[in-house]
Amino acid sequence: MGISRVYNFNPGPATLPLSVLQKAQQTFMEFGGMSILEISHRSKEFSGIIKRAETLVREHLGLPANYRVLFLQGGASIHFGMVPLNLLKNRADFSITGHWSKRALEEANHVGETRVIFTDEEGNFTRTPNPGEIKIDAQADYFHMTTNNTIFGTEYQEIPDTGDVPLVADMSSDILSKRIDVTKFALIYAGAQKNLGPAGISLVIIRDDLLEKLPRDIPTMFTYRAHAAKKSLYHTPPTFTIYCLMLVLEWIKERGGIESVEKINHEKAKLIYDALDASSLYEPHADKDSRSLMNITFRLRTDDLTDSFIEGAAKRDLVGLKGHRSVGGIRASVYNAFPIEGVKELVAFMKEFERKA
Amino acid sequence: MGISRVYNFNPGPATLPLSVLQKAQQTFMEFGGMSILEISHRSKEFSGIIKRAETLVREHLGLPANYRVLFLQGGASIHFGMVPLNLLKNRADFSITGHWSKRALEEANHVGETRVIFTDEEGNFTRTPNPGEIKIDAQADYFHMTTNNTIFGTEYQEIPDTGDVPLVADMSSDILSKRIDVTKFALIYAGAQKNLGPAGISLVIIRDDLLEKLPRDIPTMFTYRAHAAKKSLYHTPPTFTIYCLMLVLEWIKERGGIESVEKINHEKAKLIYDALDASSLYEPHADKDSRSLMNITFRLRTDDLTDSFIEGAAKRDLVGLKGHRSVGGIRASVYNAFPIEGVKELVAFMKEFERKA
Repeated sequence: MGISRVYNFNPGPATLPLSVLQKAQQTFMEFGGMSILEISHRSKEFSGIIKRAETLVREHLGLPANYRVLFLQGGASIHFGMVPLNLLKNRADFSITGHWSKRALEEANHVGETRVIFTDEEGNFTRTPNPGEIKIDAQADYFHMTTNNTIFGTEYQEIPDTGDVPLVADMSSDILSKRIDVTKFALIYAGAQKNLGPAGISLVIIRDDLLEKLPRDIPTMFTYRAHAAKKSLYHTPPTFTIYCLMLVLEWIKERGGIESVEKINHEKAKLIYDALDASSLYEPHADKDSRSLMNITFRLRTDDLTDSFIEGAAKRDLVGLKGHRSVGGIRASVYNAFPIEGVKELVAFMKEFERKA
Repeated sequence: MGISRVYNFNPGPATLPLSVLQKAQQTFMEFGGMSILEISHRSKEFSGIIKRAETLVREHLGLPANYRVLFLQGGASIHFGMVPLNLLKNRADFSITGHWSKRALEEANHVGETRVIFTDEEGNFTRTPNPGEIKIDAQADYFHMTTNNTIFGTEYQEIPDTGDVPLVADMSSDILSKRIDVTKFALIYAGAQKNLGPAGISLVIIRDDLLEKLPRDIPTMFTYRAHAAKKSLYHTPPTFTIYCLMLVLEWIKERGGIESVEKINHEKAKLIYDALDASSLYEPHADKDSRSLMNITFRLRTDDLTDSFIEGAAKRDLVGLKGHRSVGGIRASVYNAFPIEGVKELVAFMKEFERKA
């Protein structure tokens, strides 16, 4: 088809598998004389799509029966508010490892009492805590963490054991990128636009017992309970977005599931981290023992060098590499759908740029 | 291209203009080496799209400068909760003209005190009130109405004058279907999936002064103020959905704007209502002086006749005609994008069915 494609390192919305995009485009008008944009959310076609999406999430995560799978509008941001509205009665505890965990904390502060158990803000978020640094308080309503920090390029290497305290995690940037023991978590939420699909939907995994207690009277739309009771059809869902998400989940299955995806993610990240470690020009932001598989951050000595790196990369169709202003430098986001060929191109460019610098 | 198309009378998600669907499909992969699903919400391309969408909303509605245009996830349902969270301090007043205005009331009851000013529930919602029936109380924080009732097929023929009391309207099913005096309203919200685009977005028109006062401390995501301050980029917006919405707004402009669209909507509705009035088989649900331009509801004498009507219509590719269970019978939703040819097909079928019945 002669499609022109760049290598898109954007942190989200992010690159999607080419085969998924082609399938979405090719089938766009083929839903019983309608477009996928036009079919009813009560139709047989859409029921099949959303059930298949749930089945695949369950399969990929190895989800026990006492967890529900919800697809909700609003990205991760809506859960910064919904989690405390649904779960915070007395106090919630937080681990602060970057911009997004701070945002989750700030929003919980609008709802009730919070406490910070760990923070690396003074170190500008170069690391995640070791399990020993997390002192779980049994009195907390829940403990909140951000498993991967998109902006800073760090990732928990081990998930803390929180005992009876429900563990709530924002997994927007590493959901389905590697195997996890999902039974450690009580609630997982993730905006889709990094590892799952287009912007406009979030995935929520919630353990049944969290649906029982509602600590305050709030509009129904903001309760996880209502969405669970109606299997994500409490209101009209974004039908096309869920279709694309289902196609991405199928693509993961076709690749051999999470285990295969994880293996490739390690290969991709290793190529870049090895190049960083062998270089005297590039300075990685994250501590070695906290490195993210998904977002790889590094700086060059000067802003001029950084600009010229970004400019040179763009000429080779390597785009979206500018780091967030709070870190500076370069960020390469290499989510599941980012092809290893693009990583190799980046590494080749990094080496060439260093030779010339 | 040999596309097979049915006439889709579904109430939402609903039919979209064929030219919009084709444009979305054709341009799907053509955003600078990316798909529209992959571009950043901070990119030049998307900035152009969302600005164009706002410009077209302003143009179509003749919006004064003191109104903001917001594109928010969550459909109309999220506003059932957000409106009272943002505006209800002492008491809100409601006109109840159908299922969705009841839902808006029920959700406001989770937030604060409400009062019902008008209801036709005992009559099973066959009509909307005349302006004289609405007694506005100057003490109310706002007055809420649903301009068109999707399920019952009724529509306000005249918008009440609420004086200094902010008028809040759910316009999900008649937004941009006819000219309105937008200055009568303080806040308008509408789920997109009827007259504006695909499911997964809502349009909000809000007058500046409503952004000043926030009667309670709530998570930022649920404040209109935050979305207005960031021009709908407070969090990652559903980029593709907004692109489609922009294409629908362009399509309205190409048709000659709201005035032309309204004219055609009157022609379409008249064809069906004339057929109903000339018939002894079909019984319209709505009172004559409350008829909706968008959703036309009628019953047949028996359930068997209704089933056989729906079955016969489907054989002619007239689909989505089954009425909501609370009304029964038939509902023909003929939003802006529904073609007049499909209306003529329906009317021809109605006449033939009546001859044979």
